[in-house]
Amino acid sequence: MRDVSIIGIGQTRVAEHWDRSLRHLAGDAVLAAMKDADIEPAAVDALYVGNMLSGLLNGQEHLGALIADFVGLRGIEAVKVEAACGSGAAALRLGYAAVAGGLHDFVIICGVEKMTDTMNAETTTGLMMAADADYESIHGLTFVSVNALLMRRYMYEYGAKHEDFANFTVNAHHNGAGNPNAMFHNPVTAEQFSRARMIADPIGLLDSSGIGDGAAAVVLCPTHMAREHGHERVIHIRASAMATDAVAIHDRHDPLWLSAAEASAFKAYQQAGVGPRDMDLFELHDAFTIMSALSLEASGFAERGKGVWLAQAGEISREGHIPICTMGGLKARGHPVGATGVYQVVEVAQQLRGEAGANQLPNARLGMAQNIGGSGATAITHILEAQD
Amino acid sequence: MRDVSIIGIGQTRVAEHWDRSLRHLAGDAVLAAMKDADIEPAAVDALYVGNMLSGLLNGQEHLGALIADFVGLRGIEAVKVEAACGSGAAALRLGYAAVAGGLHDFVIICGVEKMTDTMNAETTTGLMMAADADYESIHGLTFVSVNALLMRRYMYEYGAKHEDFANFTVNAHHNGAGNPNAMFHNPVTAEQFSRARMIADPIGLLDSSGIGDGAAAVVLCPTHMAREHGHERVIHIRASAMATDAVAIHDRHDPLWLSAAEASAFKAYQQAGVGPRDMDLFELHDAFTIMSALSLEASGFAERGKGVWLAQAGEISREGHIPICTMGGLKARGHPVGATGVYQVVEVAQQLRGEAGANQLPNARLGMAQNIGGSGATAITHILEAQD
Repeated sequence: MRDVSIIGIGQTRVAEHWDRSLRHLAGDAVLAAMKDADIEPAAVDALYVGNMLSGLLNGQEHLGALIADFVGLRGIEAVKVEAACGSGAAALRLGYAAVAGGLHDFVIICGVEKMTDTMNAETTTGLMMAADADYESIHGLTFVSVNALLMRRYMYEYGAKHEDFANFTVNAHHNGAGNPNAMFHNPVTAEQFSRARMIADPIGLLDSSGIGDGAAAVVLCPTHMAREHGHERVIHIRASAMATDAVAIHDRHDPLWLSAAEASAFKAYQQAGVGPRDMDLFELHDAFTIMSALSLEASGFAERGKGVWLAQAGEISREGHIPICTMGGLKARGHPVGATGVYQVVEVAQQLRGEAGANQLPNARLGMAQNIGGSGATAITHILEAQD
Repeated sequence: MRDVSIIGIGQTRVAEHWDRSLRHLAGDAVLAAMKDADIEPAAVDALYVGNMLSGLLNGQEHLGALIADFVGLRGIEAVKVEAACGSGAAALRLGYAAVAGGLHDFVIICGVEKMTDTMNAETTTGLMMAADADYESIHGLTFVSVNALLMRRYMYEYGAKHEDFANFTVNAHHNGAGNPNAMFHNPVTAEQFSRARMIADPIGLLDSSGIGDGAAAVVLCPTHMAREHGHERVIHIRASAMATDAVAIHDRHDPLWLSAAEASAFKAYQQAGVGPRDMDLFELHDAFTIMSALSLEASGFAERGKGVWLAQAGEISREGHIPICTMGGLKARGHPVGATGVYQVVEVAQQLRGEAGANQLPNARLGMAQNIGGSGATAITHILEAQD
């Protein structure tokens, strides 16, 4: 297996892009990443697209060929990869496999989702397709209410109150304010968090990440080629790992333990030969505040039932021991579902390159991104390191 | 890169399975393939699912985790791969990459589609998502009418009549009659073909493959491990190649030339060191009779404009020079879109193993399967060989 590096990154702002179609968003991100990598179209071997909902929301499948052609890469190998809200990092995982294994040298990963200006369907219907259609959706659950069940149980088991989750959102919006590509730039206070209208008790509006349109892309190649070509600001993929769990929460051994997140994180730690204490930042999957708490626990940053208290203790801020959502996270950068996993990796790369602008962490060397599909049934973890 | 072999195959019959859900169909195929491979769940590293329409038709995405859990593989790496009607072979392509490259040893590929008993939407709406939503679908084209445009142009350019395509369907139904897993077992005559009611002029009902429910699966592992474990009836993947083209037919340099099929076939020939004359059978993508003619030309079995005449000359029958659709093809076996590419490979494996029953070709050693997405924008070609 070959070492793999990221030599180019690109992203659009997450927003309601009423004037940009799905292919335009993807094109913007891919072309930006190719320019950043200084790579010619003829050198590109494959394009893997992470996307969840283009069929339902945009009346368009077959995104691999569609986007490849649109960005001037007609003819290359191109597919769409889907793993619910984990689609973006799943596409990266398969691209990593193709480059590490020697099938391809230069692979572009693009995560894209167009959630506004849709054809017929509602995003609520679409997002529920991440859950179990026959055993969860059929009973009228929405994707918010699935997460609400988890949050209510967490509060009951561990004695947490709704207000205890506030700092996840305060932190995310604080960081989003400094990220020009974030959907939301407004700061949020703990008081605003508590006063926000209820969506699915106990999840309020400000527990929830924002639906938006956006695309992000990275260019991968073997590390030795990146060096030979004299690329600067190369980011090394130290680990790539994926795991799954039951889709329906009632089928899991323990609904409050994200075993897929745990398995993917610890496989990644093993591959990289590092542990959670070595991380300078952790871009986790804060689709809802409860997911932040559960991810921190499953990934070894907090003990069971203690994840929510990390936010209280200020550990998760850019000055804390384990900064999370450093560019706003899903909550403030926005959550165009199939694109999110690639945004997370682009943001870790920004931090490790020293290109995070107002949000730059000092001396960031090692960062982790974890993308979760559904309410935890899929988890993909990548560990990135700045090159010397 | 390691040599990769197929050590297990499984399939359901293609039919209107009103009593089987999507996960049950997938489960039937995967468990049959695992049994055939004599492999324990603990040995399986990953499951890649080929599927196009589960979101729209079944209200269910996230098939990777869902099916992995359902078949007793909870926890493993699992994703869905989509490339329109080419989804099945695209999943196989990525599984091949993971095993050949050394990321995984044992990977299961499952193609599945559940097209009857659907939630809200029509299959006609779904299938059109293989075409260009913004430039084709928006004008009211259906997927049949996109192919009808190609067929009309072919007839005009090359002086072919509708009746000249009859033998593609006669051959497919003749072979379907001997395949217990085929959707249709009735023979069709050239006269019935010509009398069939028109769907989208010049495409009649008997030019068109049947929509159905079904799942097929294969188990991959490195060839040296298959030998070490004493597996019998091992099928060697001699080549795996994928290419793309513009999705919208008006965007192509030549609508009557499937350049993605050509590129993927000739890349596969190069990898395997063989040519079309070496093939003992060719499972091509006969979604419509016109696609059979175009695929034969693009893949080097006929000159430009001559593909349709191969059917006339009897070359494509089981006794001909290049048998196609030996188990019924998309036309008679049925076309559960995301599953089809895996069915094709399973059927080539059946022929090479000598397990094709009434349809067995004598001395079949080398076979090719080509799965096409949309009206030709994606093509994936695999060349398989019987092991000594």
